[in-house]
Amino acid sequence: MGPHPAVAAIRLAVRRVLHDVLTEHGRTPSPGATPLVLVACSGGADSMALASALAFEAPRRGVRAAGITVDHGLQEGSDRRAADVVERLTAMGLAPVESVRVTIGRAGGPEAAARDARYAALDEAAQRLGAAAVLLGHTRDDQAETVLLGLARGSGTRSLSGMAAASGSGGLYRRPFLEIDRQVARKACMVQSLPVWDDPHNVDPAYTRSRVRHEALPILEKALGKGVVEALARTAQLSRDDADALDAWAAGAERTVRDADGRLEVAKLYALPPAVRRRVLRSSLLAAGAPAGSLFARHIEEVDKLITGWRGQGAINLPGRVEAKRQDGRLVIQQRAKPLGR
Amino acid sequence: MGPHPAVAAIRLAVRRVLHDVLTEHGRTPSPGATPLVLVACSGGADSMALASALAFEAPRRGVRAAGITVDHGLQEGSDRRAADVVERLTAMGLAPVESVRVTIGRAGGPEAAARDARYAALDEAAQRLGAAAVLLGHTRDDQAETVLLGLARGSGTRSLSGMAAASGSGGLYRRPFLEIDRQVARKACMVQSLPVWDDPHNVDPAYTRSRVRHEALPILEKALGKGVVEALARTAQLSRDDADALDAWAAGAERTVRDADGRLEVAKLYALPPAVRRRVLRSSLLAAGAPAGSLFARHIEEVDKLITGWRGQGAINLPGRVEAKRQDGRLVIQQRAKPLGR
Repeated sequence: MGPHPAVAAIRLAVRRVLHDVLTEHGRTPSPGATPLVLVACSGGADSMALASALAFEAPRRGVRAAGITVDHGLQEGSDRRAADVVERLTAMGLAPVESVRVTIGRAGGPEAAARDARYAALDEAAQRLGAAAVLLGHTRDDQAETVLLGLARGSGTRSLSGMAAASGSGGLYRRPFLEIDRQVARKACMVQSLPVWDDPHNVDPAYTRSRVRHEALPILEKALGKGVVEALARTAQLSRDDADALDAWAAGAERTVRDADGRLEVAKLYALPPAVRRRVLRSSLLAAGAPAGSLFARHIEEVDKLITGWRGQGAINLPGRVEAKRQDGRLVIQQRAKPLGR
Repeated sequence: MGPHPAVAAIRLAVRRVLHDVLTEHGRTPSPGATPLVLVACSGGADSMALASALAFEAPRRGVRAAGITVDHGLQEGSDRRAADVVERLTAMGLAPVESVRVTIGRAGGPEAAARDARYAALDEAAQRLGAAAVLLGHTRDDQAETVLLGLARGSGTRSLSGMAAASGSGGLYRRPFLEIDRQVARKACMVQSLPVWDDPHNVDPAYTRSRVRHEALPILEKALGKGVVEALARTAQLSRDDADALDAWAAGAERTVRDADGRLEVAKLYALPPAVRRRVLRSSLLAAGAPAGSLFARHIEEVDKLITGWRGQGAINLPGRVEAKRQDGRLVIQQRAKPLGR
């Protein structure tokens, strides 16, 4: 008798990712060594299921499986929980298994700050251990939530593209469960008798993601019918492909719209489709020093009006002391000097 | 003293659209005649506000303003209400003002069937009256709802692009209020003492749109913060531009991936970005006779696997008796003959 369908599903998902990692690893400079794959585990159902699938598959594929848990130090007893996760992963046969305590800053709000600290710790551990990949337990439900959060920003196709199946430098981070439902991961833990930890943050309405998960998505399903999570996850994939194609087009177009001195020609910009032109403008503004996080759709729109709605506007001030102005049929984008004495 | 800000806002929106229509009308074969602009009015706040703004602006721009109300015959007393709307539009100075009774079919569910019948009636009236444009009262809130409904389909960027500001043959239909909030239209009616009718369908939870309006959007605002409606409306515009650009790319690419006999070459398809390739496939399937309404993302995905995941698959059966198969490095897409005896 084969494993329970939920267990079969999570193992297949991990097997596919290990196959990809090994194929790519064969092309790296040190193909001789046994590759090490690290699983990031919070102790919750998703990442415990992931760790169990990695523990099962790794030895069968000639991979060393290792584990890491990040102690955010945000809750009473988080150190004991981290020790507990280390013990469980070790019992599964992962080695080495580490617990890393991080200090969380304040930049970008509590969720962003925790995420930044977590990835910094994972980056460090991956490099130190020479990991070929770090597996993350994000499920299709997490992907749907991410798309809704992106939708709320209203900044277009890229912001709807959710999380990538492979991200980070050289595709270090892999998300094998992006097409697996949270319920399946939970079921896989249950039938394998793996105790799981429910993070109280996940149900705390002070967190935007928690509100999306427990309030917005259930109501959306009620209003729009079952299948909303699947539709959102599919939207992520389609949007990612669309955004990639348009970014590639814009990168090519950017080289053709400059004059001999490298200045953007208004007439050539005007001839581009709006979607491509806006991307060229955005990339030029970033190159001039505008910070990505502060550059919104409305800024691009205003700069675009210098091309499509010209009525003699003056220079436009943008984040990062960048200014854009139209001059002699050219679009001049540059960073102003820092004020003296600062 | 100028008009109330809400009244000023709706008039400005209509003025801009009339300007566009007149500019385009100047290029039509009969530029001499006074153009007639028709407003479609249900008696609800949005379209009553629209009618009032057209009644104000039209004579100042040399335009004849006319009105039409569609009696869907779905509710007790709908004929009396239609007569009432005719009376109010006539009192505003619109002429002619018509009430048209439609018969609603069943195709595509109650909302789609009512919409189809309504547009057929508007098309007919516009042609008979020689209208240069038909104004529709869709607001930014309607646009946000449409984006959410498209999101639920999960079929990508085009389905997120909502309603166009100009649609139909030659841009006959115009939506001046796509950037106006429903509250502003309602306020404009109030300060102009225009009585409005609240369609009970709009609050009937049997209708998907009504559930989106009264359940999904308020919860989304609670979970994601104010500005969700604005973000959704901006998503519509950005998605529309992205979808247009990618469709144009795909149309160009489709000509370059065919061999001398007009067959699709697998190697050339493979080299296209996935977003462009999928659009080429979709358009080839439609051209072969697959009905647009039955062709889903998963169909395209399966045909795409003939190119990107080739392992000797057989022919794929698609809606509309269309089949796709790979043969000698070519993708063959054709419609099977109708079965005999049917």
